Amino acid sequence: MTKPIAIAIHGGAGTILKSMLTPELEAEYTLALNEAVSAGYKILKQGGTSLDAVQASVVSLENCYLFNAGKGAVFNSIGKHEMDASIMEGQFLKAGAVSSVQNIKNPVVLARAVMDQSEHVFLTANGAMEFAKARTIETAPDDYFFVQHRYDQWQSVKDTDHYNLDHVAEPTDKKFGTVGAVALDSLGNLAAATSTGGMTNKKYGRVGDSPIIGAGTYANNSTCAISCTGHGELFIRRVVAYDISCLMEYKGLSLKQACDVVVYDKLVKIEGEGGLIALDTAGNIELPFNSEGMYRASVNTQGKVFVGIYK
Amino acid sequence: MTKPIAIAIHGGAGTILKSMLTPELEAEYTLALNEAVSAGYKILKQGGTSLDAVQASVVSLENCYLFNAGKGAVFNSIGKHEMDASIMEGQFLKAGAVSSVQNIKNPVVLARAVMDQSEHVFLTANGAMEFAKARTIETAPDDYFFVQHRYDQWQSVKDTDHYNLDHVAEPTDKKFGTVGAVALDSLGNLAAATSTGGMTNKKYGRVGDSPIIGAGTYANNSTCAISCTGHGELFIRRVVAYDISCLMEYKGLSLKQACDVVVYDKLVKIEGEGGLIALDTAGNIELPFNSEGMYRASVNTQGKVFVGIYK
Repeated sequence: MTKPIAIAIHGGAGTILKSMLTPELEAEYTLALNEAVSAGYKILKQGGTSLDAVQASVVSLENCYLFNAGKGAVFNSIGKHEMDASIMEGQFLKAGAVSSVQNIKNPVVLARAVMDQSEHVFLTANGAMEFAKARTIETAPDDYFFVQHRYDQWQSVKDTDHYNLDHVAEPTDKKFGTVGAVALDSLGNLAAATSTGGMTNKKYGRVGDSPIIGAGTYANNSTCAISCTGHGELFIRRVVAYDISCLMEYKGLSLKQACDVVVYDKLVKIEGEGGLIALDTAGNIELPFNSEGMYRASVNTQGKVFVGIYK
Repeated sequence: MTKPIAIAIHGGAGTILKSMLTPELEAEYTLALNEAVSAGYKILKQGGTSLDAVQASVVSLENCYLFNAGKGAVFNSIGKHEMDASIMEGQFLKAGAVSSVQNIKNPVVLARAVMDQSEHVFLTANGAMEFAKARTIETAPDDYFFVQHRYDQWQSVKDTDHYNLDHVAEPTDKKFGTVGAVALDSLGNLAAATSTGGMTNKKYGRVGDSPIIGAGTYANNSTCAISCTGHGELFIRRVVAYDISCLMEYKGLSLKQACDVVVYDKLVKIEGEGGLIALDTAGNIELPFNSEGMYRASVNTQGKVFVGIYK
């Protein structure tokens, strides 16, 4: 009997209502989520590692203009794209992360290189980009990251002190643009990865939870793999991803119970809007979010594909 | 009856042997540790907050050329001083952190400003320095950070691929240069802060555990306040500071039991050399380290001062 394989992905959470999406756009999101989850699942199905699977899914999401990561990364206050990403595997607890990198086509690939090809876990800004250069990680010019609706969003808030947690023009609307994946491979190993362009019009080299091991990303074969999307500052202060792992390991909660406590109780109490994707070594998948919607997809241990956007 | 107050500080851990320190240097370290712990304790004694106390102690350590933080920060691969710091309070779980900042006299003061004067938790590199400028945080020229023995250490490894986790010339010797403080104030609030210059000859904008909430620094009134010093990569992967909190909250361990599990078992198993300082709301102080020594000091709830360097 082969061991179970499973995968889940997200493309961000927030105020995502059916009334806000045209049928065409909804179809486009659905297709993109399907493609991204399939990219990772294909690797698992062929006996590949969960690390390669989460990387492939996140690369697929980074390459799609719809999501706030890679190509679709939002504009910061000076019209640049500053991205964060991280990746972790659950067998040896190895991890790699980068913050505030520019002109890197796939930040998750750079995070993976930090994990595999350096003695470090976390590199930032210009230094991380020098490392990318030394490792011939693929770069892309500013033009590559130009997406009209992102530009329009930025124009609507630029020269103000507003910043958006995501990709809607109205500062009152909240979307948390992040992408991520969690996977379980046929060897029983878990992995997680997260990537983001951060907040529209962000200043001051702001870093959210996405590149923080323990906050936005965590994987441990004894418990679970987690990738978060939400109001990053609150997710950092609550060490969200590792909290779920600890609730399982130290308190004996199931994956579902741990997710429920963190997403629907702890985070709600501090207005920590957002969600996460979670997977354990039995292949149980949880996709909880306390916002209006979360772009998400999964393939469970029976091979059943699920794609969801709204509640 | 007034509530108990207490404070503990560290100035780094690693291969610190009595044979390596002249009596004069030992006396200098002892004096500096005494001064730093007193700076924070004085604030607590006058009814000040634990946040102000940990900040004062860390500023004192940052201003001393002996420790790898602030003035004494090590040289990176291009002869600059790139510093990380973080601070957190245990009542509302507010936090502030900066990574890879240059020419900031007291990085912990900048981390505090991020916490108090921004909506963010974590700022990095040039962006963090712009924020510092906008908030008129005190800067210092490169000259201020010039310390002869740091320069000599750098010269001995520069133009090689070696980097040192601390401030000894021999790459085989390990010291983890970091400073930190934890405090409990008369209102029963905990706080923690950590600051570092990172690794001698470091490249690529490497960031260790010091600015990572949950890894190098954590504070929560329901459990404990923690500041770590050690091999940062391993401390990030183990989410060390929050792990101690979770072992207390979810598994019911005492502060001492939780510290023992993490420092003498979990970290030892992965060769995670280093230590930490820990404090709970009853005023219990733990100063565990699995290395040869750790520069440390504390004032307990009885007002008794302790200063230690070796095992």
